[in-house]
Amino acid sequence: MTMPSGRRTRLSPDERREQLLDLGVELLAERTLDELSIDLLAEKAGISRGLLFHYFKNKNDFHREVVKRAADDLIKRTEPNPDDDALTQLVASLQAYVDYVQTNYDTYLLLVRGAGGGNADLREIADNTRAHMAARLVESAAKMGIPATDRAQLIARGCLAFAEEIVIAWVPDPKIERDDLIASLSRSMLAIISEFSPPEVDLPAELPFEN
Amino acid sequence: MTMPSGRRTRLSPDERREQLLDLGVELLAERTLDELSIDLLAEKAGISRGLLFHYFKNKNDFHREVVKRAADDLIKRTEPNPDDDALTQLVASLQAYVDYVQTNYDTYLLLVRGAGGGNADLREIADNTRAHMAARLVESAAKMGIPATDRAQLIARGCLAFAEEIVIAWVPDPKIERDDLIASLSRSMLAIISEFSPPEVDLPAELPFEN
Repeated sequence: MTMPSGRRTRLSPDERREQLLDLGVELLAERTLDELSIDLLAEKAGISRGLLFHYFKNKNDFHREVVKRAADDLIKRTEPNPDDDALTQLVASLQAYVDYVQTNYDTYLLLVRGAGGGNADLREIADNTRAHMAARLVESAAKMGIPATDRAQLIARGCLAFAEEIVIAWVPDPKIERDDLIASLSRSMLAIISEFSPPEVDLPAELPFEN
Repeated sequence: MTMPSGRRTRLSPDERREQLLDLGVELLAERTLDELSIDLLAEKAGISRGLLFHYFKNKNDFHREVVKRAADDLIKRTEPNPDDDALTQLVASLQAYVDYVQTNYDTYLLLVRGAGGGNADLREIADNTRAHMAARLVESAAKMGIPATDRAQLIARGCLAFAEEIVIAWVPDPKIERDDLIASLSRSMLAIISEFSPPEVDLPAELPFEN
Protein backbone atom coordinates (compact mmCIF):
# COMPACT_ATOMS: atom_id res chain seq x y z
CA MET A 1 0.00 0.00 0.00
CA THR A 2 1.29 3.48 -0.76
CA MET A 3 -0.06 6.70 0.60
CA PRO A 4 -0.09 9.91 -1.39
CA SER A 5 2.75 11.73 0.28
CA GLY A 6 2.02 15.27 1.31
CA ARG A 7 -1.16 15.44 -0.75
CA ARG A 8 -4.40 16.36 0.99
CA THR A 9 -7.06 13.68 0.90
CA ARG A 10 -10.72 13.95 1.74
CA LEU A 11 -10.77 11.12 4.26
CA SER A 12 -12.72 11.36 7.50
CA PRO A 13 -10.61 11.21 10.69
CA ASP A 14 -11.71 7.59 11.20
CA GLU A 15 -10.78 6.60 7.68
CA ARG A 16 -7.49 8.40 8.04
CA ARG A 17 -6.80 6.54 11.27
CA GLU A 18 -7.57 3.21 9.60
CA GLN A 19 -5.22 4.10 6.77
CA LEU A 20 -2.47 4.98 9.26
CA LEU A 21 -2.96 1.63 10.99
CA ASP A 22 -2.70 -0.22 7.67
CA LEU A 23 0.49 1.67 6.99
CA GLY A 24 1.72 0.78 10.48
CA VAL A 25 1.11 -2.93 9.88
CA GLU A 26 2.89 -2.67 6.54
CA LEU A 27 5.89 -0.93 8.12
CA LEU A 28 5.96 -3.43 10.98
CA ALA A 29 6.49 -6.27 8.52
CA GLU A 30 10.04 -5.07 7.92
CA ARG A 31 11.15 -3.94 11.37
CA THR A 32 10.72 -4.58 15.06
CA LEU A 33 8.06 -2.84 17.11
CA ASP A 34 10.78 -0.75 18.74
CA GLU A 35 11.89 0.50 15.36
CA LEU A 36 8.36 1.49 14.42
CA SER A 37 8.49 5.10 15.60
CA ILE A 38 5.94 7.85 15.34
CA ASP A 39 8.54 9.79 13.34
CA LEU A 40 8.80 7.02 10.77
CA LEU A 41 5.04 6.77 10.46
CA ALA A 42 4.80 10.55 10.04
CA GLU A 43 7.44 10.50 7.34
CA LYS A 44 5.91 7.59 5.43
CA ALA A 45 2.40 8.99 5.72
CA GLY A 46 3.59 12.43 4.71
CA ILE A 47 1.93 14.16 7.63
CA SER A 48 3.34 16.00 10.61
CA ARG A 49 4.38 14.31 13.81
CA GLY A 50 2.03 16.62 15.71
CA LEU A 51 -0.94 15.56 13.62
CA LEU A 52 -0.23 11.89 14.36
CA PHE A 53 -0.78 12.56 18.04
CA HIS A 54 -4.27 13.54 17.07
CA TYR A 55 -4.84 9.89 16.10
CA PHE A 56 -2.73 8.11 18.71
CA LYS A 57 -2.18 9.21 22.27
CA ASN A 58 1.44 8.12 22.35
CA LYS A 59 3.85 5.60 20.93
CA ASN A 60 2.55 2.76 23.10
CA ASP A 61 -1.02 3.47 22.05
CA PHE A 62 0.08 3.47 18.41
CA HIS A 63 1.95 0.17 18.84
CA ARG A 64 -0.97 -1.47 20.56
CA GLU A 65 -3.38 -0.39 17.83
CA VAL A 66 -1.05 -1.60 15.07
CA VAL A 67 -0.62 -5.02 16.68
CA LYS A 68 -4.35 -5.22 17.27
CA ARG A 69 -4.91 -4.45 13.61
CA ALA A 70 -2.50 -7.23 12.65
CA ALA A 71 -4.37 -9.63 14.95
CA ASP A 72 -7.74 -8.61 13.47
CA ASP A 73 -6.26 -9.24 10.04
CA LEU A 74 -5.25 -12.77 10.99
CA ILE A 75 -8.71 -13.48 12.42
CA LYS A 76 -10.44 -12.11 9.33
CA ARG A 77 -8.26 -13.95 6.85
CA THR A 78 -8.76 -17.30 8.56
CA GLU A 79 -12.50 -16.82 9.04
CA PRO A 80 -14.27 -19.88 7.64
CA ASN A 81 -17.12 -19.52 5.17
CA PRO A 82 -20.26 -20.20 7.23
CA ASP A 83 -21.88 -21.98 4.25
CA ASP A 84 -19.13 -24.61 4.09
CA ASP A 85 -19.34 -27.90 5.93
CA ALA A 86 -17.16 -28.30 9.01
CA LEU A 87 -14.41 -30.25 7.27
CA THR A 88 -14.07 -27.73 4.45
CA GLN A 89 -14.04 -24.94 7.01
CA LEU A 90 -11.23 -26.58 8.96
CA VAL A 91 -9.03 -27.19 5.93
CA ALA A 92 -9.69 -23.74 4.44
CA SER A 93 -8.91 -22.05 7.75
CA LEU A 94 -5.67 -23.97 8.09
CA GLN A 95 -4.66 -23.07 4.54
CA ALA A 96 -5.37 -19.40 5.15
CA TYR A 97 -3.52 -19.61 8.45
CA VAL A 98 -0.40 -21.12 6.89
CA ASP A 99 -0.52 -18.44 4.15
CA TYR A 100 -0.84 -15.70 6.73
CA VAL A 101 2.10 -16.94 8.82
CA GLN A 102 4.23 -17.45 5.72
CA THR A 103 3.56 -13.94 4.41
CA ASN A 104 3.74 -12.18 7.78
CA TYR A 105 6.22 -14.28 9.69
CA ASP A 106 7.85 -11.67 11.89
CA THR A 107 4.60 -9.91 12.64
CA TYR A 108 3.04 -13.24 13.54
CA LEU A 109 5.93 -14.08 15.88
CA LEU A 110 5.46 -10.73 17.55
CA LEU A 111 1.75 -11.42 17.79
CA VAL A 112 2.08 -14.77 19.52
CA ARG A 113 5.42 -14.52 21.31
CA GLY A 114 6.17 -10.83 21.72
CA ALA A 115 3.89 -10.81 24.71
CA GLY A 116 6.57 -12.66 26.66
CA GLY A 117 8.49 -9.41 26.94
CA GLY A 118 6.21 -8.23 29.68
CA ASN A 119 4.13 -5.84 27.58
CA ALA A 120 0.68 -6.34 29.09
CA ASP A 121 -1.09 -4.82 26.08
CA LEU A 122 0.54 -7.24 23.68
CA ARG A 123 -0.19 -10.14 25.98
CA GLU A 124 -3.84 -9.18 26.08
CA ILE A 125 -4.04 -8.95 22.29
CA ALA A 126 -2.37 -12.35 21.95
CA ASP A 127 -4.72 -13.90 24.52
CA ASN A 128 -7.81 -12.41 22.90
CA THR A 129 -6.74 -13.56 19.46
CA ARG A 130 -6.17 -17.10 20.65
CA ALA A 131 -9.45 -17.09 22.58
CA HIS A 132 -11.31 -15.95 19.48
CA MET A 133 -9.74 -18.61 17.28
CA ALA A 134 -10.28 -21.32 19.91
CA ALA A 135 -13.95 -20.35 20.19
CA ARG A 136 -14.23 -20.65 16.42
CA LEU A 137 -12.69 -24.12 16.53
CA VAL A 138 -15.12 -25.19 19.26
CA GLU A 139 -17.95 -23.94 17.03
CA SER A 140 -16.62 -25.95 14.08
CA ALA A 141 -16.30 -29.05 16.26
CA ALA A 142 -19.85 -28.49 17.49
CA LYS A 143 -20.96 -28.79 13.86
CA MET A 144 -19.27 -32.20 13.88
CA GLY A 145 -21.19 -33.20 16.98
CA ILE A 146 -18.72 -32.40 19.77
CA PRO A 147 -20.51 -30.60 22.60
CA ALA A 148 -18.83 -27.33 23.64
CA THR A 149 -17.81 -28.58 27.08
CA ASP A 150 -14.95 -27.32 29.24
CA ARG A 151 -12.93 -30.23 27.93
CA ALA A 152 -13.65 -29.30 24.31
CA GLN A 153 -12.55 -25.75 25.05
CA LEU A 154 -9.30 -26.88 26.61
CA ILE A 155 -8.61 -29.20 23.70
CA ALA A 156 -9.37 -26.44 21.20
CA ARG A 157 -6.76 -24.23 22.86
CA GLY A 158 -4.31 -27.10 22.64
CA CYS A 159 -5.10 -27.59 18.94
CA LEU A 160 -4.32 -23.95 18.26
CA ALA A 161 -1.00 -24.22 20.08
CA PHE A 162 -0.32 -27.41 18.10
CA ALA A 163 -0.84 -25.64 14.77
CA GLU A 164 1.02 -22.54 15.93
CA GLU A 165 4.13 -24.47 16.98
CA ILE A 166 4.21 -26.55 13.81
CA VAL A 167 3.72 -23.66 11.41
CA ILE A 168 6.24 -21.45 13.24
CA ALA A 169 8.80 -24.26 12.99
CA TRP A 170 7.92 -25.05 9.38
CA VAL A 171 8.06 -21.59 7.74
CA PRO A 172 11.78 -20.86 8.23
CA ASP A 173 12.77 -24.49 7.61
CA PRO A 174 10.15 -26.18 5.40
CA LYS A 175 11.36 -29.76 5.51
CA ILE A 176 8.04 -31.08 4.24
CA GLU A 177 5.89 -29.87 1.35
CA ARG A 178 3.19 -27.28 1.99
CA ASP A 179 0.45 -29.76 0.99
CA ASP A 180 1.87 -32.31 3.40
CA LEU A 181 1.90 -29.67 6.12
CA ILE A 182 -1.75 -28.72 5.57
CA ALA A 183 -2.78 -32.37 5.37
CA SER A 184 -0.84 -33.24 8.52
CA LEU A 185 -2.42 -30.40 10.47
CA SER A 186 -5.92 -31.20 9.23
CA ARG A 187 -5.58 -34.92 9.82
CA SER A 188 -4.21 -34.40 13.32
CA MET A 189 -7.02 -32.09 14.29
CA LEU A 190 -9.65 -34.34 12.78
CA ALA A 191 -8.13 -37.29 14.61
CA ILE A 192 -8.52 -35.40 17.87
CA ILE A 193 -12.07 -34.34 17.01
CA SER A 194 -12.96 -37.94 16.06
CA GLU A 195 -11.52 -39.22 19.31
CA PHE A 196 -13.94 -37.05 21.27
CA SER A 197 -16.98 -37.28 19.04
CA PRO A 198 -19.88 -39.27 20.41
CA PRO A 199 -20.21 -42.64 18.65
CA GLU A 200 -23.44 -41.70 16.89
CA VAL A 201 -21.73 -38.94 14.90
CA ASP A 202 -20.50 -39.88 11.44
CA LEU A 203 -17.33 -38.01 10.71
CA PRO A 204 -16.23 -37.82 7.07
CA ALA A 205 -14.57 -41.15 6.32
CA GLU A 206 -12.95 -39.85 3.16
CA LEU A 207 -10.58 -37.02 3.88
CA PRO A 208 -9.40 -34.89 1.00
CA PHE A 209 -5.79 -35.95 1.49
CA GLU A 210 -3.52 -38.71 0.34
CA ASN A 211 -1.87 -40.82 2.98
CA MET B 1 15.25 -28.84 51.33
CA THR B 2 17.12 -27.04 54.05
CA MET B 3 20.80 -26.35 54.20
CA PRO B 4 22.74 -26.25 57.43
CA SER B 5 23.13 -22.53 57.84
CA GLY B 6 26.66 -21.36 58.59
CA ARG B 7 27.88 -24.86 59.38
CA ARG B 8 30.84 -26.22 57.46
CA THR B 9 30.16 -29.33 55.43
CA ARG B 10 32.60 -31.74 53.86
CA LEU B 11 31.18 -31.51 50.37
CA SER B 12 33.39 -31.38 47.30
CA PRO B 13 33.16 -28.15 45.26
CA ASP B 14 31.04 -29.97 42.68
CA GLU B 15 28.69 -31.35 45.29
CA ARG B 16 28.47 -27.93 46.89
CA ARG B 17 27.64 -26.36 43.55
CA GLU B 18 24.89 -28.95 42.96
CA GLN B 19 23.50 -28.19 46.40
CA LEU B 20 23.52 -24.46 45.66
CA LEU B 21 21.65 -25.07 42.41
CA ASP B 22 19.04 -27.16 44.20
CA LEU B 23 18.63 -24.35 46.69
CA GLY B 24 18.36 -21.88 43.78
CA VAL B 25 15.55 -23.91 42.19
CA GLU B 26 13.80 -24.10 45.55
CA LEU B 27 14.09 -20.34 46.07
CA LEU B 28 12.95 -19.66 42.50
CA ALA B 29 9.66 -21.44 43.18
CA GLU B 30 8.55 -18.52 45.34
CA ARG B 31 9.93 -15.51 43.46
CA THR B 32 10.78 -14.18 40.04
CA LEU B 33 14.19 -14.69 38.50
CA ASP B 34 14.92 -10.99 39.05
CA GLU B 35 14.28 -11.42 42.76
CA LEU B 36 16.64 -14.37 42.96
CA SER B 37 19.79 -12.47 43.89
CA ILE B 38 23.23 -13.73 44.75
CA ASP B 39 22.78 -12.04 48.14
CA LEU B 40 19.67 -14.05 48.86
CA LEU B 41 21.35 -17.29 47.86
CA ALA B 42 24.35 -16.45 50.06
CA GLU B 43 22.05 -15.72 52.99
CA LYS B 44 19.98 -18.89 52.57
CA ALA B 45 23.03 -21.06 52.00
CA GLY B 46 24.83 -19.49 54.94
CA ILE B 47 27.97 -18.75 52.98
CA SER B 48 29.60 -15.51 51.95
CA ARG B 49 28.71 -13.61 48.82
CA GLY B 50 32.34 -13.76 47.76
CA LEU B 51 32.43 -17.54 48.03
CA LEU B 52 29.39 -17.81 45.76
CA PHE B 53 31.33 -16.15 42.98
CA HIS B 54 33.64 -19.12 43.22
CA TYR B 55 30.75 -21.26 41.96
CA PHE B 56 29.03 -18.84 39.58
CA LYS B 57 30.73 -16.22 37.44
CA ASN B 58 27.97 -13.68 37.89
CA LYS B 59 24.25 -13.30 38.47
CA ASN B 60 23.38 -14.19 34.87
CA ASP B 61 25.49 -17.31 35.03
CA PHE B 62 23.79 -18.29 38.29
CA HIS B 63 20.33 -17.67 36.81
CA ARG B 64 21.10 -19.66 33.70
CA GLU B 65 22.37 -22.61 35.73
CA VAL B 66 19.34 -22.57 38.03
CA VAL B 67 16.90 -22.53 35.12
CA LYS B 68 18.90 -25.26 33.41
CA ARG B 69 18.66 -27.32 36.60
CA ALA B 70 14.90 -26.82 36.67
CA ALA B 71 14.70 -27.93 33.01
CA ASP B 72 16.82 -31.02 33.72
CA ASP B 73 14.49 -31.79 36.58
CA LEU B 74 11.45 -31.69 34.32
CA ILE B 75 13.16 -33.93 31.77
CA LYS B 76 14.22 -36.43 34.44
CA ARG B 77 10.85 -36.58 36.16
CA THR B 78 8.99 -37.21 32.91
CA GLU B 79 11.48 -39.79 31.65
CA PRO B 80 9.57 -42.93 30.68
CA ASN B 81 10.59 -46.32 31.97
CA PRO B 82 12.32 -48.01 29.02
CA ASP B 83 10.85 -51.39 30.00
CA ASP B 84 7.28 -50.17 29.63
CA ASP B 85 5.34 -50.49 26.40
CA ALA B 86 4.82 -47.31 24.38
CA LEU B 87 1.30 -46.66 25.62
CA THR B 88 2.25 -46.99 29.28
CA GLN B 89 5.23 -44.73 28.65
CA LEU B 90 3.05 -42.06 27.10
CA VAL B 91 0.49 -42.06 29.89
CA ALA B 92 3.11 -42.19 32.65
CA SER B 93 5.06 -39.32 31.09
CA LEU B 94 1.92 -37.23 30.82
CA GLN B 95 1.03 -37.93 34.43
CA ALA B 96 4.48 -36.96 35.61
CA TYR B 97 4.36 -33.88 33.41
CA VAL B 98 1.05 -32.70 34.85
CA ASP B 99 2.40 -33.31 38.36
CA TYR B 100 5.53 -31.32 37.61
CA VAL B 101 3.64 -28.34 36.18
CA GLN B 102 1.16 -28.41 39.05
CA THR B 103 3.89 -28.43 41.69
CA ASN B 104 6.23 -25.99 39.93
CA TYR B 105 3.82 -23.75 38.08
CA ASP B 106 5.72 -20.45 38.13
CA THR B 107 9.05 -22.09 37.44
CA TYR B 108 7.51 -23.97 34.55
CA LEU B 109 6.03 -20.77 33.11
CA LEU B 110 9.45 -19.18 33.34
CA LEU B 111 10.93 -22.23 31.67
CA VAL B 112 8.64 -22.20 28.66
CA ARG B 113 7.63 -18.55 28.35
CA GLY B 114 10.27 -16.52 30.12
CA ALA B 115 12.41 -16.79 27.04
CA GLY B 116 10.12 -14.26 25.36
CA GLY B 117 11.77 -11.53 27.38
CA GLY B 118 14.76 -11.55 25.09
CA ASN B 119 17.10 -13.50 27.37
CA ALA B 120 18.98 -15.63 24.84
CA ASP B 121 20.21 -18.09 27.51
CA LEU B 122 16.67 -18.80 28.70
CA ARG B 123 15.47 -19.16 25.13
CA GLU B 124 18.19 -21.70 24.45
CA ILE B 125 17.31 -23.71 27.55
CA ALA B 126 13.63 -23.68 26.59
CA ASP B 127 14.43 -24.75 23.02
CA ASN B 128 16.74 -27.54 24.15
CA THR B 129 14.21 -28.81 26.66
CA ARG B 130 11.46 -28.92 24.05
CA ALA B 131 13.79 -30.54 21.53
CA HIS B 132 14.73 -33.22 24.04
CA MET B 133 11.12 -33.99 24.92
CA ALA B 134 10.06 -33.96 21.27
CA ALA B 135 12.84 -36.42 20.42
CA ARG B 136 11.59 -38.66 23.22
CA LEU B 137 8.07 -38.52 21.83
CA VAL B 138 9.32 -39.41 18.36
CA GLU B 139 11.12 -42.38 19.91
CA SER B 140 7.94 -43.49 21.67
CA ALA B 141 5.96 -43.16 18.43
CA ALA B 142 8.65 -45.18 16.65
CA LYS B 143 7.91 -47.99 19.07
CA MET B 144 4.30 -47.77 17.83
CA GLY B 145 5.47 -48.04 14.22
CA ILE B 146 5.66 -44.39 13.15
CA PRO B 147 8.89 -43.77 11.26
CA ALA B 148 10.92 -40.83 12.59
CA THR B 149 10.43 -38.68 9.49
CA ASP B 150 10.59 -34.88 9.28
CA ARG B 151 6.82 -34.93 9.45
CA ALA B 152 6.83 -37.03 12.62
CA GLN B 153 9.29 -34.61 14.18
CA LEU B 154 7.16 -31.59 13.34
CA ILE B 155 4.07 -33.30 14.70
CA ALA B 156 5.90 -34.28 17.89
CA ARG B 157 6.78 -30.62 18.47
CA GLY B 158 3.15 -29.75 17.93
CA CYS B 159 2.04 -32.42 20.40
CA LEU B 160 4.31 -30.94 23.06
CA ALA B 161 2.91 -27.47 22.46
CA PHE B 162 -0.58 -28.99 22.63
CA ALA B 163 0.08 -30.53 26.05
CA GLU B 164 1.91 -27.43 27.28
CA GLU B 165 -0.91 -25.06 26.40
CA ILE B 166 -3.58 -27.30 27.89
CA VAL B 167 -1.77 -27.96 31.16
CA ILE B 168 -0.78 -24.30 31.58
CA ALA B 169 -4.43 -23.33 31.13
CA TRP B 170 -5.69 -26.12 33.36
CA VAL B 171 -3.53 -25.70 36.49
CA PRO B 172 -4.75 -22.25 37.59
CA ASP B 173 -8.34 -22.99 36.55
CA PRO B 174 -8.97 -26.75 36.67
CA LYS B 175 -12.42 -26.92 35.11
CA ILE B 176 -12.10 -30.63 34.45
CA GLU B 177 -10.90 -33.43 36.75
CA ARG B 178 -7.24 -34.39 36.73
CA ASP B 179 -8.05 -37.88 35.43
CA ASP B 180 -10.09 -36.39 32.62
CA LEU B 181 -7.19 -34.09 31.80
CA ILE B 182 -4.68 -36.96 31.61
CA ALA B 183 -7.09 -39.09 29.61
CA SER B 184 -7.84 -36.22 27.22
CA LEU B 185 -4.17 -35.55 26.63
CA SER B 186 -3.35 -39.22 26.15
CA ARG B 187 -6.29 -39.88 23.86
CA SER B 188 -5.53 -36.83 21.74
CA MET B 189 -1.92 -37.81 21.28
CA LEU B 190 -2.79 -41.41 20.56
CA ALA B 191 -5.38 -40.25 18.04
CA ILE B 192 -2.68 -38.28 16.26
CA ILE B 193 -0.24 -41.19 16.42
CA SER B 194 -2.91 -43.56 15.07
CA GLU B 195 -3.70 -41.18 12.24
CA PHE B 196 -0.10 -41.38 11.04
CA SER B 197 0.64 -45.02 11.80
CA PRO B 198 1.00 -47.27 8.78
CA PRO B 199 -2.03 -49.54 8.36
CA GLU B 200 -0.08 -52.69 9.25
CA VAL B 201 0.58 -51.44 12.78
CA ASP B 202 -1.86 -52.54 15.44
CA LEU B 203 -2.27 -49.80 17.99
CA PRO B 204 -3.81 -50.72 21.32
CA ALA B 205 -7.54 -50.88 20.69
CA GLU B 206 -8.37 -50.77 24.38
CA LEU B 207 -7.16 -47.58 25.96
CA PRO B 208 -6.96 -47.41 29.73
CA PHE B 209 -9.58 -44.64 29.87
CA GLU B 210 -13.31 -44.36 30.09
CA ASN B 211 -15.09 -42.40 27.41
